[in-house]
Amino acid sequence: MARIAFWYEFASTYSYLSAMRIEEMAREAGVAVDWRPFLLGPIFAAQGWTTSPFNLYEAKGRNMWRDMERLTAARGLGLRRPDPFPQNGLYAARLALIGADEGWGPAFTRAVYRAEFAEGADISDKAVLAAALRSVGLDADALLARIAEPEVKDRLKAQTGEAQARGVFGAPSFFVGDELYWGDDRLEQALAHARASD
Amino acid sequence: MARIAFWYEFASTYSYLSAMRIEEMAREAGVAVDWRPFLLGPIFAAQGWTTSPFNLYEAKGRNMWRDMERLTAARGLGLRRPDPFPQNGLYAARLALIGADEGWGPAFTRAVYRAEFAEGADISDKAVLAAALRSVGLDADALLARIAEPEVKDRLKAQTGEAQARGVFGAPSFFVGDELYWGDDRLEQALAHARASD
Repeated sequence: MARIAFWYEFASTYSYLSAMRIEEMAREAGVAVDWRPFLLGPIFAAQGWTTSPFNLYEAKGRNMWRDMERLTAARGLGLRRPDPFPQNGLYAARLALIGADEGWGPAFTRAVYRAEFAEGADISDKAVLAAALRSVGLDADALLARIAEPEVKDRLKAQTGEAQARGVFGAPSFFVGDELYWGDDRLEQALAHARASD
Repeated sequence: MARIAFWYEFASTYSYLSAMRIEEMAREAGVAVDWRPFLLGPIFAAQGWTTSPFNLYEAKGRNMWRDMERLTAARGLGLRRPDPFPQNGLYAARLALIGADEGWGPAFTRAVYRAEFAEGADISDKAVLAAALRSVGLDADALLARIAEPEVKDRLKAQTGEAQARGVFGAPSFFVGDELYWGDDRLEQALAHARASD
């Protein structure tokens, strides 16, 4: 079966857009999705950025929020700006990595994005993550206990290192084989490539 | 008649994409296009950038060129990387400003972009600009003599200042009234807005 890898960062507004539509689009295209949560922070830091470029460059940030308003309205999604922005998605990414193995990663990821960007919740708050876990039928306490495990921490570090090594510089990013597509705007093109190369 | 303002920088690869398709798309949508050449250099400098972000951020630049390869292939456009990149589009922008008043701005703009990004020519070279002017039936010597006129220089400075004041931070940018759309990827959305607000 044709495959696409979906690399996403929980703090990323455009990753929210892709997370909410990739599964249905991929199913229609007959393409399987590998959900790959990672952290942009270390990659941005290597570029000399201490926060989101949308905060560093004010006009760019203003446009991004207006663009998100237009796109979420057109797609029937909620939009409420979380405070602070960007959010700290470390715990969410560790949980999503566990979930990617256990089959509940996509549903949990969507629940976190909905809390963060449709409801404006703080996803560094374990209570918010617990609610997201429970909303998809999971044992929140047992899973939250695992985010401090060394192997979970190491795995997220390795995943982030892999992203950087493969040339990922922003999120969402999509890979079809070694071909990188950057941004929610390229999801259609990436899926067409995956289907054609099956 | 509904209107869209097309703000473009001659050094910008994605402005090339929009310049080659906006007129036909706007005609089909029943929207008039105002061609607004400007310089990104002073705007980037105000953000602390000394060159294109595609040069400052290597992975981002690599992706941009690959993205351009895919998009130009899909649209039947040529792509040859000019050296240096970014090109100095100062003279081209001054000429395009004169052309915007005299009706030949769009055809001249496309001729310059084709020379720069389909043929890899250096558009700071007056011989290249002369060839672009002649290709659309103009008196190259007479027009090139005007690029040193103080009123032409001042007008480009004012146009660039207006872009910055209106929140333009990259190119291409489109305005429908005060609504800003950034990037070739938003051209369809901007035209739909222009048509709806007619």
